[in-house]
Amino acid sequence: HPSKLPNIGTTIFTTVGNLARKHNAIDLSQGFPNFEADNRLLDLVSKAMHDGHNQYAPMPGYYGLRDVISQKIETLHGHSYHPESEITVTVGATQAIFTAITAFVHPNDEVIVLKPAYDCYEPAIALNGGVPVYLELKAPSFAVDWTAFKNLISPKTKMVIINTPHNPSGRIFSRGDMLQLQEVLRRTNILLLSDEVYEHIVFDGQQHESASRFKDLASRSFICASFGKTFHVTGWKMGYCAAPKHLMDEFRKVHQFNVFSVDHPTQRAMAEYLNTKEHYTHLNRFYQEKRDFFTKGVDGSRFICKPSQGTYFQLLDYSNITDEADTDFAKRLITDYKLASIPISSFNLNNRDDKVLRFCFAKKEETLERALDILQGI
Amino acid sequence: HPSKLPNIGTTIFTTVGNLARKHNAIDLSQGFPNFEADNRLLDLVSKAMHDGHNQYAPMPGYYGLRDVISQKIETLHGHSYHPESEITVTVGATQAIFTAITAFVHPNDEVIVLKPAYDCYEPAIALNGGVPVYLELKAPSFAVDWTAFKNLISPKTKMVIINTPHNPSGRIFSRGDMLQLQEVLRRTNILLLSDEVYEHIVFDGQQHESASRFKDLASRSFICASFGKTFHVTGWKMGYCAAPKHLMDEFRKVHQFNVFSVDHPTQRAMAEYLNTKEHYTHLNRFYQEKRDFFTKGVDGSRFICKPSQGTYFQLLDYSNITDEADTDFAKRLITDYKLASIPISSFNLNNRDDKVLRFCFAKKEETLERALDILQGI
Ligand SMILES: CSCCC(=O)C(=O)O
Ligand SMILES: CSCCC(=O)C(=O)O
Repeated sequence: HPSKLPNIGTTIFTTVGNLARKHNAIDLSQGFPNFEADNRLLDLVSKAMHDGHNQYAPMPGYYGLRDVISQKIETLHGHSYHPESEITVTVGATQAIFTAITAFVHPNDEVIVLKPAYDCYEPAIALNGGVPVYLELKAPSFAVDWTAFKNLISPKTKMVIINTPHNPSGRIFSRGDMLQLQEVLRRTNILLLSDEVYEHIVFDGQQHESASRFKDLASRSFICASFGKTFHVTGWKMGYCAAPKHLMDEFRKVHQFNVFSVDHPTQRAMAEYLNTKEHYTHLNRFYQEKRDFFTKGVDGSRFICKPSQGTYFQLLDYSNITDEADTDFAKRLITDYKLASIPISSFNLNNRDDKVLRFCFAKKEETLERALDILQGI
Repeated sequence: HPSKLPNIGTTIFTTVGNLARKHNAIDLSQGFPNFEADNRLLDLVSKAMHDGHNQYAPMPGYYGLRDVISQKIETLHGHSYHPESEITVTVGATQAIFTAITAFVHPNDEVIVLKPAYDCYEPAIALNGGVPVYLELKAPSFAVDWTAFKNLISPKTKMVIINTPHNPSGRIFSRGDMLQLQEVLRRTNILLLSDEVYEHIVFDGQQHESASRFKDLASRSFICASFGKTFHVTGWKMGYCAAPKHLMDEFRKVHQFNVFSVDHPTQRAMAEYLNTKEHYTHLNRFYQEKRDFFTKGVDGSRFICKPSQGTYFQLLDYSNITDEADTDFAKRLITDYKLASIPISSFNLNNRDDKVLRFCFAKKEETLERALDILQGI
């Protein structure tokens, strides 16, 4: 049986995670918090279960949740998605991304991917016979050259995938970036998949420029979002996709036969929780304090640090310390120093090695303190 | 954007469900219970959340759960799946089925589907460019003609999909069926997808003949199972797939980029709950009592009833009453009599109309009583 994904091995998250556990290392690799979610949210799930909401949720999601999602987007970004036909609750943003790609990418369609990129886009493209077309963003700025981007567009271009705030770089797309993107796509039929899972983790007073804020972009976009990232419950696997009806209709055809629907009690709980705006508006500040704590703590070490603009990741350049490959250095950090991070070559085209590691700072202060002690000693 | 599933409209479950709600009908259409799950199971989920298991479960599932699943299969069917490499926890059986098909079916591969069939197989085959090859089972026996089956095998046959106990017919495959299937597939490279979501709902002392009980079948099979069906929590969307390592390796490549992993607290709870054998061994009797209540209650009405052998569905033949199309009669049952069921033409090849409706008897006795009163009055 020939493999449909011959080049996929064990992911970097599994490899690094296993090594970290084996060496009892402080784990700043995979992106998830090591502090607890709000007890009130947990209690709401218990309540929904005990209230008897344990059978199938509607295929596109519990209506009450789609309704608050719609209100949230309207309030934050001024775009109105109809909860009935334009929002679908998904098994995390990952399933939203997989489903959008599966519903629209046909064999030989081209999909523009900006590298470095999180690891789930390319296998989904490959499984559908699509062809990724790459634009490389270069450390340390990771700026997009929009002229180069424009030159990648061809009659075969079906979709563009963006991710802002961007994992792993921590860069956010400015309003200027989004306007340039909109200009390039205008008068084409190209779809936009906008991975916005870190939408509520943006620093220094900047604005998250959701694709839904730009009328012409919104008309061609799938906005993919994650409650797991937003509410410190990555293990609940819940997110959503918002898109105009004519796109959502096709998305749902795949969603229905892929997972049918999503955990019902959690959706009920999330609907109630999301109603309180403070549950997400404080996050920018909450995570900025962690970013500041981490970046200030790195000051004076031999690592070079350009503070992240968003996400809960911070890149550190170690080129002052060694010219080892990032995978080797990341490994040595675990085995010899008991600190785990992600070598960003695993996100790069052809595993380009920028001598940069990614650290997740969604951790308790005491965890970050211990990590910083280690980094200062290297 | 050309649709990849041009023939998919709203499913029969949504159409009938909406009509049933509008007319405030007793709903025996979609397959889910209207009684409550075990409180102990709900409490275990609450406990897992409050114990802090809210971040990503491992990609293939929480190991403790995979371990009990493995023990369960070993005890019931004598086949040993390695929890590390041969079992993956999925977002219900639906995602297991979608993922197995996506991982193995290439464009132009043939997949043998027995009709009537639950609605999720064919869209998954179509999305992967596969070609369904049909064997029709005929009411009222729904017996498989294994010679006809054998004649469908071609060099292009990649996979066979079976479902036992069978939705919608309520027929279970006998040991004889499974041995014949094994014989036909022996010395081929054909995969078997065995949808066994009703494994614990088998009547009259019969044995559920899991594909895992047959060595040569097991070596080529994906066994797909559902905790939602088994534990009265269809809304939790949790199931699993068991398969030999060389098949599971490819399955997981797709699983990982489709959903990455499954709700973590629920997996913890399920692991503890599944440890008590009584939680599933009593189900055959529990549902047999409901089947008996329903079929005895139909006695003396104008419906023809051949008792279901498994699943929580009962077919009723209404050809004595009217020669209306089953979709029309099902509709009229809702609007005029306030009772909802599924017309099985929606599961049949070319919507063949057998004048048969499907009723879900996973309902409280009082619900079944009210439904029986209606059926007796028609
Ligand atoms: C699903 S595992 C990875 C989590 C994550 O978003 C990251 O670490 O980049
Ligand atoms: C996922 S909706 C249908 C539930 C079911 O298994 C059925 O009614 O056949």
